[in-house]
Amino acid sequence: MRVPFETMISEFYRVLTKLGMPEDRARRSAQLFAESSRDGVYTHGLNRFPRYVDNIKDGTIDVNAQPVLTQQMGALARYDGCKGPGNLNAQYCMDRAMELAEQFGIGCVAVGNTNHWLRPGAFGLQAAEKGYLAIMWTNTIPNMPPWGGKDARLGNNPIVFAVPSRQGVVLLDVAMSMFSYGKLESYARAGKELPVDGGIDSQGNITKDAGEIMKTKQPLPIGYWKGSGMSLMLDLMAAVLSGGRTTREVGELPLETELCQVFIVMKMDAFGDKEILLDKIDATLADVKASPALQEGAMVRWPGEGMQKVRRESLEQGVLVDEEIWQKVLGM
Amino acid sequence: MRVPFETMISEFYRVLTKLGMPEDRARRSAQLFAESSRDGVYTHGLNRFPRYVDNIKDGTIDVNAQPVLTQQMGALARYDGCKGPGNLNAQYCMDRAMELAEQFGIGCVAVGNTNHWLRPGAFGLQAAEKGYLAIMWTNTIPNMPPWGGKDARLGNNPIVFAVPSRQGVVLLDVAMSMFSYGKLESYARAGKELPVDGGIDSQGNITKDAGEIMKTKQPLPIGYWKGSGMSLMLDLMAAVLSGGRTTREVGELPLETELCQVFIVMKMDAFGDKEILLDKIDATLADVKASPALQEGAMVRWPGEGMQKVRRESLEQGVLVDEEIWQKVLGM
Repeated sequence: MRVPFETMISEFYRVLTKLGMPEDRARRSAQLFAESSRDGVYTHGLNRFPRYVDNIKDGTIDVNAQPVLTQQMGALARYDGCKGPGNLNAQYCMDRAMELAEQFGIGCVAVGNTNHWLRPGAFGLQAAEKGYLAIMWTNTIPNMPPWGGKDARLGNNPIVFAVPSRQGVVLLDVAMSMFSYGKLESYARAGKELPVDGGIDSQGNITKDAGEIMKTKQPLPIGYWKGSGMSLMLDLMAAVLSGGRTTREVGELPLETELCQVFIVMKMDAFGDKEILLDKIDATLADVKASPALQEGAMVRWPGEGMQKVRRESLEQGVLVDEEIWQKVLGM
Repeated sequence: MRVPFETMISEFYRVLTKLGMPEDRARRSAQLFAESSRDGVYTHGLNRFPRYVDNIKDGTIDVNAQPVLTQQMGALARYDGCKGPGNLNAQYCMDRAMELAEQFGIGCVAVGNTNHWLRPGAFGLQAAEKGYLAIMWTNTIPNMPPWGGKDARLGNNPIVFAVPSRQGVVLLDVAMSMFSYGKLESYARAGKELPVDGGIDSQGNITKDAGEIMKTKQPLPIGYWKGSGMSLMLDLMAAVLSGGRTTREVGELPLETELCQVFIVMKMDAFGDKEILLDKIDATLADVKASPALQEGAMVRWPGEGMQKVRRESLEQGVLVDEEIWQKVLGM
């Protein structure tokens, strides 16, 4: 089933204002949710909306809170997220990081005590569409074992890289686990094997069996020991810069909240050679696409390229929705 | 065979000064090479020294050149590496990035037109030993196919994350390819299977056969499509920030030179709560280590932990060397 993009925004807006979210904030949050589904990131669009609503109702998310600057030294700033809505907090922090980059060439905002930011890539688009380079990441609850270990002590800590190009934003949005639990579940339900190694089975061996991984709760980090290390480093840096909770400390709470995020932004045209740099970027994107494909008839794509097609289809034909969840939202 | 650490430094120093490198620079370069072997990173210590010497002789490395500031905006600075020695250039840039962080909380130095920086982790240690958080990366020649593609159009672009701790530097130094060609070669020579997927075989399938991967020249990125994307993003960012060559442009040269690197440094005690942050870090390291191990008798380690043991052994018993290469250096 497909729903017009604007209808989606107005339904989310209706629900959020009903829950007491101020109008301007509700509009921006509704927009972020709808854009996520529009761009094909269904897990963090409509599908996640009911949980956001639950978190507002149970007090995990304070609809009125917004980040408060607690400390600043030049281009490095620390904010308290005050348990505000994660998506709006992140949008706010990215705006601040861009302001710092405008002033200092580079800017870094770290926020603690915030909530799940929903679609990580949203804030990459926010920066790169305005011509900035950006790197940002979040920590999470413990949901992945360290390499060589059996129990979840690391987060999957998604990281985003965003670079402007004349062909749209080059956008990479990746978690440190090879597959999310949502993805594992959909493979398990379909009785399909994962395309590549995804976790450890009950015998302690690496496996492509999604059902087994859901039982052992031992998803693999990307690049095995490498992603395990990266997850740890991202967590430590986020907690140190923000002064907030590490993944370990988030794990002490009854549910995933009080997270940390880092937003690093660099001004692309700081040195007045933007057109030359865009030429470089275009040439690299074209070069990567020109690689002969491993599978006949296939084509190599750059990160963010596929999203553009989904977005066009969503805007032309309506946004693809899970009908059950959509009906649920309409009834809220 | 083991050689005293100090002997190693003085031999490297002797060779480099003989080649015309100024004394202070030769001392620092010799130290970096010896420290790399001392810490167990043999590929970028003694084993790489003969190639460094060759590159000095053939003019790829200018022993007298040092980075020149070409542009600066606040905490963001761009340097021309002037084809200087990659390790000394990187050391210089990291010092500048720390100075910027001291002034602005965060500092970013990007350098183009530089050479291979040898051991990436060296510059992470340089920053974290002085109490800074650091992220740095380099681009390389094209040596890895993009995900879904057949020919090398991406670099393996190593990235380093460094965080101080009371137990030594937490140091992650990882390339975007799962295994280096050096590693593949040693597995192929030993007739051993890789521990995990490492590349694509001649039938186009994912394989653990190192020999096959050396033939197809299709090593796998870490996390398959994820590392492929990360490699691309790191390359674009390095070239944009430095104004230097992309991996594609480096590939147009007869050999690997004129690379770009980025050094991002954050002041850990910018907000006066360093001891609290070190407590957080220690608690996380202890927590990760407390994970029950997948293999009986094994233990989970944090990035950089293993290095400390190797370093102690090297300093007590001498640094492990490949005798043939060591003799070669003695004869230089």
